[in-house]
Amino acid sequence: MSKFWTPVVKRTDPYVPGEQLNDPDVIKLNTNENPYKPSPRVIEAITKTATGDMQKYPSPTADELREAIAEVNGVKKENVFVGNGSDEVLAFAFYAFFEEGKTLKFPAISYSFYPVYSKLFNIPFEAIPLQDDFTLRAEHYFDAEAGVIFPNPNAPTSIYWPLEEVKRVLEANPDVVVIVDEAYIDFAVGGESAVSLIDQYPNLLVIQTTSKSRALAGLRVGLAIGQPELIEGLVRIKDSFNSYTVDQLALAGATEAFRDTDYFEEKRQAVIATRIETVAALEERGFDVLPSGANFVFAKKDGVDVERLYEQLKAKKVLVRHFKDPLIANYLRISIGTDEQMDEFLKRLDEALV
Amino acid sequence: MSKFWTPVVKRTDPYVPGEQLNDPDVIKLNTNENPYKPSPRVIEAITKTATGDMQKYPSPTADELREAIAEVNGVKKENVFVGNGSDEVLAFAFYAFFEEGKTLKFPAISYSFYPVYSKLFNIPFEAIPLQDDFTLRAEHYFDAEAGVIFPNPNAPTSIYWPLEEVKRVLEANPDVVVIVDEAYIDFAVGGESAVSLIDQYPNLLVIQTTSKSRALAGLRVGLAIGQPELIEGLVRIKDSFNSYTVDQLALAGATEAFRDTDYFEEKRQAVIATRIETVAALEERGFDVLPSGANFVFAKKDGVDVERLYEQLKAKKVLVRHFKDPLIANYLRISIGTDEQMDEFLKRLDEALV
Repeated sequence: MSKFWTPVVKRTDPYVPGEQLNDPDVIKLNTNENPYKPSPRVIEAITKTATGDMQKYPSPTADELREAIAEVNGVKKENVFVGNGSDEVLAFAFYAFFEEGKTLKFPAISYSFYPVYSKLFNIPFEAIPLQDDFTLRAEHYFDAEAGVIFPNPNAPTSIYWPLEEVKRVLEANPDVVVIVDEAYIDFAVGGESAVSLIDQYPNLLVIQTTSKSRALAGLRVGLAIGQPELIEGLVRIKDSFNSYTVDQLALAGATEAFRDTDYFEEKRQAVIATRIETVAALEERGFDVLPSGANFVFAKKDGVDVERLYEQLKAKKVLVRHFKDPLIANYLRISIGTDEQMDEFLKRLDEALV
Repeated sequence: MSKFWTPVVKRTDPYVPGEQLNDPDVIKLNTNENPYKPSPRVIEAITKTATGDMQKYPSPTADELREAIAEVNGVKKENVFVGNGSDEVLAFAFYAFFEEGKTLKFPAISYSFYPVYSKLFNIPFEAIPLQDDFTLRAEHYFDAEAGVIFPNPNAPTSIYWPLEEVKRVLEANPDVVVIVDEAYIDFAVGGESAVSLIDQYPNLLVIQTTSKSRALAGLRVGLAIGQPELIEGLVRIKDSFNSYTVDQLALAGATEAFRDTDYFEEKRQAVIATRIETVAALEERGFDVLPSGANFVFAKKDGVDVERLYEQLKAKKVLVRHFKDPLIANYLRISIGTDEQMDEFLKRLDEALV
């Protein structure tokens, strides 16, 4: 504590990101990054931009990137907001749409940044327990005071929630914003994005990221899609905070990531195929694995202390994620790597389980 | 207005950045960018990083960049905070150190983002008139309730304020934070940075940017230097907002910009030399030019309607900046370009003045 800190700083409870070990020998399955590099077209666009006019400010309105995102999503540029990673977009959205002092609803097991934002912006929250099978129940999110936010697919459970249920939440909250946080949506086989609902629901904001399915965690580009009045709310906060939050290189790289749809599709399918194999391999070893719509799986094994298993794997240079929350402390979250990484993971897992 | 907006969005009065024309024929002297490209070592570092592991998150603590900045400034890494442009660093600093409801002091003529942040975070402010010669008077900034912030050199006046005066402000405000916003400090001949004072004053935070003297406006990297308890306050806000605000490419590029001190010195001196010539040329033409410690000049000419002159220059594809505030409406702010650009500017100025 410092006498120079405002009450805001004093009430914060900052987020702790997953470990970032730089040891190249480590198989890093702990932060849900894509195991593949971004499209060569992305790298080319970045390189070309770097030799251009880096001494000049980037476009504050990011029109080209927003056009590319709109095209992929079948919406208009006016429906798209971009920011410095979906974390920044989430922060702006909390500030723009969830009113201080009113209660926000989100699942008790979900992205652990939500309570952090809530404390920052002084928004009380109701963290609603999941059902026994780790799914959400629409009725729990009806009549929210400040609004509703949930990841879909949820994290760290990996479970996708059908749009019919999402619609019921939207319809029961006509006067507040419902944010569907779709960081992992591209990995949900048969799971449609809520973007298809934005024309119908002015209270819907969908947030996505380039950090997962587009393999650009290192570039920090996130986005929101919704009706123009919600986008305008985000722009007003952004332009009162930092006019240029996406730099020239990030604009160029992310634009190309949305344009190269073939590469995106190829790598997305590769991750999904590896996930299916990983789930089968874990089940063969007696693990219970929740149905995954993400680029990670959430698994437990009866009779196995997974916190100890996490440590054993770490000693064998495999990094996965364990959460201390008692509701999920018997699970490990394992990001999906390449086939080779997952084979090696399974080998070291078998050694650890002996 | 939208029923979905919080009172925060409703009270904002967003910043309007300078025009970004993409016409390559335009001589762009309106946003105080550096006319030179960044160091080739910066571009090399970016290109190398782009072909690396862009699918992985950047370092949330940015240690390497903070080390490079600390080295250049003769401080420790623990004294350095980095963010997505100095605008983001300023936003975090307002939120971290200036308490809602208490009155902040800043010069009435200064960076026009200060009132924007103040409205966003609900901080009342006293915008203090400059003296007749456009300088600041230390006594005006004594005993501030929430804190004090001013640019040094000031913008858009370009005038540097001696550290002896800055010290008086620091000493008269021992219990609140005084932010010295040094975006242009590297162009102030003989003007020392307040960084030399941080050991003496726990209430001092110095903010700088790579957008001006390091020619990296397109990369979005700003920084703050102060005692560790102020840095920790900024980190707590950042980690409650967005853990990774500086992307991999920006980290790599900015680190190299601080390491390549020869290139920095060469281009800095080139800009200063061109400024001296530009001032002389403007004075020859009957302009009054304020003493500049920045990479721009602030000039007026008796009997000339500079708003009209701004429009005439724009028609001739020279973009400078004019502010409508009546206190400075008879001045133009002209960024310093290359010698060739300034020759061309003067030629078109002469045509306009005929």
